[in-house]
Amino acid sequence: MKIISEEIQIDTRGEGDMVDITDHLTEILSRTGLKNGQLTTFVPGSTAALTTIEYEPGLKKDFPSALERLVPHNIPYEHDKTWHDGNGHSHVRASIVGPSLTIPFSNGRLILGTWQQVVLVEMDIHSRSRRLFIQIIGE
Amino acid sequence: MKIISEEIQIDTRGEGDMVDITDHLTEILSRTGLKNGQLTTFVPGSTAALTTIEYEPGLKKDFPSALERLVPHNIPYEHDKTWHDGNGHSHVRASIVGPSLTIPFSNGRLILGTWQQVVLVEMDIHSRSRRLFIQIIGE
Amino acid sequence: MKIISEEIQIDTRGEGDMVDITDHLTEILSRTGLKNGQLTTFVPGSTAALTTIEYEPGLKKDFPSALERLVPHNIPYEHDKTWHDGNGHSHVRASIVGPSLTIPFSNGRLILGTWQQVVLVEMDIHSRSRRLFIQIIGE
Repeated sequence: MKIISEEIQIDTRGEGDMVDITDHLTEILSRTGLKNGQLTTFVPGSTAALTTIEYEPGLKKDFPSALERLVPHNIPYEHDKTWHDGNGHSHVRASIVGPSLTIPFSNGRLILGTWQQVVLVEMDIHSRSRRLFIQIIGE
Repeated sequence: MKIISEEIQIDTRGEGDMVDITDHLTEILSRTGLKNGQLTTFVPGSTAALTTIEYEPGLKKDFPSALERLVPHNIPYEHDKTWHDGNGHSHVRASIVGPSLTIPFSNGRLILGTWQQVVLVEMDIHSRSRRLFIQIIGE
Repeated sequence: MKIISEEIQIDTRGEGDMVDITDHLTEILSRTGLKNGQLTTFVPGSTAALTTIEYEPGLKKDFPSALERLVPHNIPYEHDKTWHDGNGHSHVRASIVGPSLTIPFSNGRLILGTWQQVVLVEMDIHSRSRRLFIQIIGE
């Protein structure tokens, strides 16, 4: 059994941007030559999150719209009163969706549905350059 | 250390159906004979999710009701404008709850609370036959 | 490759209390001497959850406030009608945020952002003594 770790950099365009990282993960996995195991991806930072979604233009709008309804940007946040960076809602949204995702792979392929992609969701109000950590444990 | 993977099939009865899969996981784990490690379960597809909950009749209604309040089915979704499948809300709900769950085990037993079960939550509007992937890493 | 498991106990002060457990995780990891791998932390029980957040006084209020807006305590829950323990909303909140978190480590350090801490979020209405399970797989 082996552990292989890699970091990639993903540039995002600010709040609500969802970046499909599936191809990056697939490529890293195929380079390892490992056949069975699990891939964990983790985003360091407290204003971004990882999940899976059908990556199509409609849902690229619907998911951020839902987050805005659930955790509106235009209500008071204690975080903003102290830090005046206007991203209290970004933090809350990121903590709900979560920074970590573990996906098993079998016969060298991630166990994803056909219309299921892995996305990095930018919650911060500015564009950011995100460091993404990918770790593969397998054989 | 070993990696053992298995797939099971779970039939769901459509939106809001929560299926207790704890016994399946326990049975698969006990068959491996492994004592310490972790079990990851992952649902391929973008309209179902995995979490833990106290599996009792009240919460089987409360959790779907909460999802309906949080991500209502009867508001416009861009997804539905394009695909006309009426499950835009299902996708959004699934992406919030998440498709992956990792549970450690010790002395051959999953580290779950007494009133904590693992559930597959169907978010799609129709009954579905779900493929569930279970992967165990341990010794 | 090794698997090392440990349990810690965390006392919480009831609903909305967020306890920073990062130092506990860091200390346990450093004691293992392992350099590369992943740490999974899991909270047994169905009324607590784990996530990451910037642990500062503002967000310690904002995150519980958001949960209260999303899943209010003062609406009817079927759970409460049966069990009369008044924590139906606690269960729902915990199931949305989730009981499990996997964080990779590299060169003996958890891959967390500078302002990203790991928190146990108490959702139950009373103070609780929580058992937390930490499992490290690595080399």
